[in-house]
Amino acid sequence: MNLGLKPQSYEGKWCVRIAILLFEQVTALDIAGPYKVLSYLPDAEVICVGERVGPVRNEKGTLGLMVDAALPDVPDPDIILIPGGPGQLRCMSTQAILNWLRTTDRHTKWTTSVCTESPLLAAAGIIKGRKATTHWLAFDQLSNFGVTPVSERVVFDGKYATAAGVSAGIDMALSLCAKINGEYAAQAIQLGLEYDPQPPFNAGSVKKAPSEIVQLLRSRSEKILKVAS
Amino acid sequence: MNLGLKPQSYEGKWCVRIAILLFEQVTALDIAGPYKVLSYLPDAEVICVGERVGPVRNEKGTLGLMVDAALPDVPDPDIILIPGGPGQLRCMSTQAILNWLRTTDRHTKWTTSVCTESPLLAAAGIIKGRKATTHWLAFDQLSNFGVTPVSERVVFDGKYATAAGVSAGIDMALSLCAKINGEYAAQAIQLGLEYDPQPPFNAGSVKKAPSEIVQLLRSRSEKILKVAS
Repeated sequence: MNLGLKPQSYEGKWCVRIAILLFEQVTALDIAGPYKVLSYLPDAEVICVGERVGPVRNEKGTLGLMVDAALPDVPDPDIILIPGGPGQLRCMSTQAILNWLRTTDRHTKWTTSVCTESPLLAAAGIIKGRKATTHWLAFDQLSNFGVTPVSERVVFDGKYATAAGVSAGIDMALSLCAKINGEYAAQAIQLGLEYDPQPPFNAGSVKKAPSEIVQLLRSRSEKILKVAS
Repeated sequence: MNLGLKPQSYEGKWCVRIAILLFEQVTALDIAGPYKVLSYLPDAEVICVGERVGPVRNEKGTLGLMVDAALPDVPDPDIILIPGGPGQLRCMSTQAILNWLRTTDRHTKWTTSVCTESPLLAAAGIIKGRKATTHWLAFDQLSNFGVTPVSERVVFDGKYATAAGVSAGIDMALSLCAKINGEYAAQAIQLGLEYDPQPPFNAGSVKKAPSEIVQLLRSRSEKILKVAS
């Protein structure tokens, strides 16, 4: 099979490198969903990068994930995936992360984000003037950086693929996989992870959830942002 | 809010403990999906357990996850979640894991699994005579252990909740959350993780995927099992 990308030499073997940015207070599902899809592309090799090699903690602090390479050691991946989480606020003011995003983005074939991280791409100036999506509670952050928020589950604009909140990363990665390697490969991966979703409730979007639940989450989010600011 | 479970004292605070079993060659999405749902139950505290404290690697080896407590240190969690992955085969012959499952199961309010791990519960003798689901490629493993395989995305039988392959863990956890804390809480969590799935293809189950793709994955799975046996 052909990835449609030029493989690179990495530790002696040929592969297409996918770098996933890890940081403190990241959401593990934003990583694990797209990881499960993209890592099954032929010749794909995922590397988890961060400010320092070693463990970081998710948003609840009770799930640890390993950073395997420091940012400067992965300067030219083919694909970058930026997962979301409350740690986004700190990332937005971390120059090492912003600079890595700017420099790697010059080389990527695809630059992708899940949930609250398209505002991070926006803060780095990478997607200015483009369309993007994000978690439904983070839309204002996008327009503040000159990006047009689009209320879709997955948005492609050139080489930029952005997903809505958390679980939308799976849908984004499957669409991306189809663009890179064709629908057949994407469908094989979908069947492998038995992605035939059957949510027990119809409450997964602002349009579908009961309005009192939307309001509950909106007010909680405002409290969190107030504490963080 | 009331979890409907009796909270325990853990490191000085009251909580309901959810233990997730980590092992070498685990699938991260099997963990991260249910984690994202169950960890947002009120008073819930997740702890990642394994044979040894420290990092384990997922099935591809390129994502590291931290075991925070050794099995003997978490003898009586309220809920256990057993994620799947190719490491299942080794788990099935690891007495420390089988014994931990048997002893903790005596205390749990809910014993749950995702993907290929209901056969591990079966191998431990915990769900003998019950109904369960698993990844579509692992059905024979269940019947070999005296468990009735049911081709459903999520199966509840008493306090046992089993999910089909990988991504089905999200659906299972939302249903479980509703049983524990009501539909309102489950819907709030669903909206928080924007779980409004829109797969780009209709290939997520054996019934829906093109037959040549089903056959491709079946033949690959047979090769893997042959190598592992």
